[in-house]
Amino acid sequence: MQKVAFVGLGSIGRPMARRIAAAGFPLTVWNRTRERATAFAGEHKARAATTAAEAASGADVVVTCLSTSLDVSDVLDAGLLDGIGAGSILLDCTSGDPATSRQIAERLAAKQVGFVDAPVSGGVRGAEEGTLTVMCGGDAKDLDRVRPVIEAFGKKIVHCGPVGAGDAVKAMNQALLALTIWGTGEALVALAKSGVSAQVALEVINASSGRSNASMNLFPERVLTRAFPRTFRLALLDKDARIAAQIARDERVPAPLTQLAADLCTLARQELGEDADHVEAVKVIEKWAGAEIR
Amino acid sequence: MQKVAFVGLGSIGRPMARRIAAAGFPLTVWNRTRERATAFAGEHKARAATTAAEAASGADVVVTCLSTSLDVSDVLDAGLLDGIGAGSILLDCTSGDPATSRQIAERLAAKQVGFVDAPVSGGVRGAEEGTLTVMCGGDAKDLDRVRPVIEAFGKKIVHCGPVGAGDAVKAMNQALLALTIWGTGEALVALAKSGVSAQVALEVINASSGRSNASMNLFPERVLTRAFPRTFRLALLDKDARIAAQIARDERVPAPLTQLAADLCTLARQELGEDADHVEAVKVIEKWAGAEIR
Amino acid sequence: MQKVAFVGLGSIGRPMARRIAAAGFPLTVWNRTRERATAFAGEHKARAATTAAEAASGADVVVTCLSTSLDVSDVLDAGLLDGIGAGSILLDCTSGDPATSRQIAERLAAKQVGFVDAPVSGGVRGAEEGTLTVMCGGDAKDLDRVRPVIEAFGKKIVHCGPVGAGDAVKAMNQALLALTIWGTGEALVALAKSGVSAQVALEVINASSGRSNASMNLFPERVLTRAFPRTFRLALLDKDARIAAQIARDERVPAPLTQLAADLCTLARQELGEDADHVEAVKVIEKWAGAEIR
Amino acid sequence: MQKVAFVGLGSIGRPMARRIAAAGFPLTVWNRTRERATAFAGEHKARAATTAAEAASGADVVVTCLSTSLDVSDVLDAGLLDGIGAGSILLDCTSGDPATSRQIAERLAAKQVGFVDAPVSGGVRGAEEGTLTVMCGGDAKDLDRVRPVIEAFGKKIVHCGPVGAGDAVKAMNQALLALTIWGTGEALVALAKSGVSAQVALEVINASSGRSNASMNLFPERVLTRAFPRTFRLALLDKDARIAAQIARDERVPAPLTQLAADLCTLARQELGEDADHVEAVKVIEKWAGAEIR
Repeated sequence: MQKVAFVGLGSIGRPMARRIAAAGFPLTVWNRTRERATAFAGEHKARAATTAAEAASGADVVVTCLSTSLDVSDVLDAGLLDGIGAGSILLDCTSGDPATSRQIAERLAAKQVGFVDAPVSGGVRGAEEGTLTVMCGGDAKDLDRVRPVIEAFGKKIVHCGPVGAGDAVKAMNQALLALTIWGTGEALVALAKSGVSAQVALEVINASSGRSNASMNLFPERVLTRAFPRTFRLALLDKDARIAAQIARDERVPAPLTQLAADLCTLARQELGEDADHVEAVKVIEKWAGAEIR
Repeated sequence: MQKVAFVGLGSIGRPMARRIAAAGFPLTVWNRTRERATAFAGEHKARAATTAAEAASGADVVVTCLSTSLDVSDVLDAGLLDGIGAGSILLDCTSGDPATSRQIAERLAAKQVGFVDAPVSGGVRGAEEGTLTVMCGGDAKDLDRVRPVIEAFGKKIVHCGPVGAGDAVKAMNQALLALTIWGTGEALVALAKSGVSAQVALEVINASSGRSNASMNLFPERVLTRAFPRTFRLALLDKDARIAAQIARDERVPAPLTQLAADLCTLARQELGEDADHVEAVKVIEKWAGAEIR
Repeated sequence: MQKVAFVGLGSIGRPMARRIAAAGFPLTVWNRTRERATAFAGEHKARAATTAAEAASGADVVVTCLSTSLDVSDVLDAGLLDGIGAGSILLDCTSGDPATSRQIAERLAAKQVGFVDAPVSGGVRGAEEGTLTVMCGGDAKDLDRVRPVIEAFGKKIVHCGPVGAGDAVKAMNQALLALTIWGTGEALVALAKSGVSAQVALEVINASSGRSNASMNLFPERVLTRAFPRTFRLALLDKDARIAAQIARDERVPAPLTQLAADLCTLARQELGEDADHVEAVKVIEKWAGAEIR
Repeated sequence: MQKVAFVGLGSIGRPMARRIAAAGFPLTVWNRTRERATAFAGEHKARAATTAAEAASGADVVVTCLSTSLDVSDVLDAGLLDGIGAGSILLDCTSGDPATSRQIAERLAAKQVGFVDAPVSGGVRGAEEGTLTVMCGGDAKDLDRVRPVIEAFGKKIVHCGPVGAGDAVKAMNQALLALTIWGTGEALVALAKSGVSAQVALEVINASSGRSNASMNLFPERVLTRAFPRTFRLALLDKDARIAAQIARDERVPAPLTQLAADLCTLARQELGEDADHVEAVKVIEKWAGAEIR
């Protein structure tokens, strides 16, 4: 079985690594905050490395799951690039940006190391249950080699295109998530001020053509209940939506809704702080309108 | 059984009227183009009236199903208001605007005539099968009185609030439809230029958080196939989205995405013409980007 | 000389009325807060009326200078319509909206009273010095009759078109004001974060093609100094920009920048409060960016 | 006197080079289309080089005036980097982007070559008359060294900040130009449809707070006359506005108007073609509205 190194034991990374260990892959983990790696190694069949380079040394597949592509670059610069061996593959599950992923792939290629960008969708629960959707960019051959590792945590594995394609699809999905959250929020706040309850409005919309994952799941579960559980940070949605806006700009596609959604995420993040959940963005609309979605 | 008059035998109105006749309501129909009314009366158990006033005379419930609230006002001015009797109710299934509906309701109230705005969702097929969603605004008592008529063509009947509330919910649903069509179009065009096929992108998005009715149904069936069937005119979506934008503006809800979606519909309508289907709006993005969704 | 009634002694109305009195027109004034009218009558050659109807009674020209067209409608309803005599003219210097102005003109026409919408530009100082720009909508004959009164406070008097045309031009000017304030703010905040001082940037911009009244006058005098004097309320700019957005929507002109500028004014007003000056809107951009224009 | 090499004899570059020659600097010119360089050398006191490297060889100051920063990179790659000598300075008058300029500056620094980004404003006439505004980014010492050369064609020379600052200020000026052209266009088209002539509207706006260089100069001279002279290509304004949008995005400044202006330029360029003048962008608004600015 392939030897695997896992770098980045965050809220999604940890359950992914757990499933890799449970699937029987010899696993070494590394995390910037060392205690996390040690704790993980204590609980699962895995070894904690002191440095990212040490984790990568001897691994056939190095999995990274960090916040941004720049974080991946930084870890590479901080030693990972030296530790990773020729013939191995970097499987980057970060929700990254295509341009930086392409630069990383070039740097790795010079060392005979492959690269697959493979951001995931499905949240903490999907990671725990091994039902993540994994959108992959890179050579088909490289993807085939890392597929057994991906299968430990992913259910739907889609080859989207060349390096960066996985990042691009993920970013666009997130921009659509931002667009539907914010758009549904605008609609429900305006209706609330018109005297229509959000519950009634959603009952209609969710039986009609304007429905989306946001209107069918997020609003009933999180907004109408005012629960706003913190499952995915607005700061990360902002990052993703900005990547989507950047792709559209780079590809010379006039995309005014995508651009606007990205700016709305950025300002909502500034308004609500780094810890806010992505669905809390609707609170900004509520504040602007002086009315609550009810 | 209540005597029903039906005004407006368009593509949705005709099957609605047919179901009312089939349910056994004594029915008189009127249409601006008289041949349509005569033909309808020839095929179904209904009488064709020469004027809207004549149709309304003696009816307990007058159903209108026209393009805009202004059309309803015009028909009222052109005689309907004189023909309609005290104690009857106008059930307006037009996708109207709340402000004009409220004005119409006031004028009718002065003649002891009730008013319920009741725009529908579900398309021609929903009308034919009697499975329309009907969003109603007005007094609960008035709604109860017309409910048997609505049940002839509607399955999900939702009381949204006071007069205009049905229009408002319908308009907001349509704005969300416009937003998701256009937003998904932006994403898929940008991805196409990045080398990601639309089919692959939709496979991922439709298993992820950015999915919507547009991405799950409209794009696979109509855009990827390049079929673009003409089922609902862009001109009408433009009208609806403009009503939504107007409501947000009137209610002082900053709603930049809704406003932008309305403008995009207006310009796409100008670009593509009065006969274009609403989903064809994505062709404008394709033209701007010099690339096709594939 | 024509007898004049003046309704609305706000910050602009007062100096306008003062100049009318100084020009020798027999003047009666009325204000909702009665003390203002009494004080005015005490200081100038004018009579204070107890009601708007009383002020209008016997006047050849009734000047209104209120916040919104709805305020004008309200004052008409509250008695002014009864007091105003056949053959007289209502000269409405409110920054109004064309649709309401047209309705008011119709109501007055039924009583043989003329109507000219005549919003002004030039601020308190322009009013005091009689150098206001006055943009007029209505019949040329009606305008000719009120021109002597306008000349008491206006320098540049422009006949823009039929009733509502004055309102429309004023609103569009204000939307452009909002657009240039906000757009220049975006540019200077982004440059500040790039390490370019606002003073240097304005030195260049004001010698280049991107310059505007905002960049040449408002930013150097009010933003760079952080003085932000309160000369014209953001709440009024919001109202004006909303009228402009409404006109574009009604005329079916896709105007995404105008629509967005209106929403930005509305949200900035909610953020900064009813007393904020219009130029303070840039503080919202600064907050969103976490940086100050310096 | 410093020996100067000039690379890029386009419509702005040619008159700039002419003034440098006229000021007595020993000058070598190079242009991709060789005939231009030969023709220039035949008419002015200058030598035509066969390659960019040859032009740069022995020069104290190498001036580049190309379309984009990527063009500058390409010319560097194609030999200029080899030809340019240690101790010399690259004075880049391209309207470039800060990120690429910073990369270029780094590459040059490794060869002991200085870099100053120095985009210009003022058009062909400004270049011919030596009255350009020049916005400079880089070390003050480097700027001092190239100042004599800049003075040959520039009148107002502003040190904006570090490398890239000149590009940034230029881009933001252009974004404001795009914003005011498009915004004024929206206003005038909406007014035209309301029955207000553009000439009357501009008479008022240009005496009021919404005025800008666009409303005061471009619209009266180019739009009302329907002359639309081709002085500055829309394709270049699009490029500049996109740089501005990019800077705002990179600096995390929510700048929805700037982002929208950039997308409007991109789509107008696609609609009108590569040769269209920047002011012709208003024709897109006219098409969308079905009305002309008159």
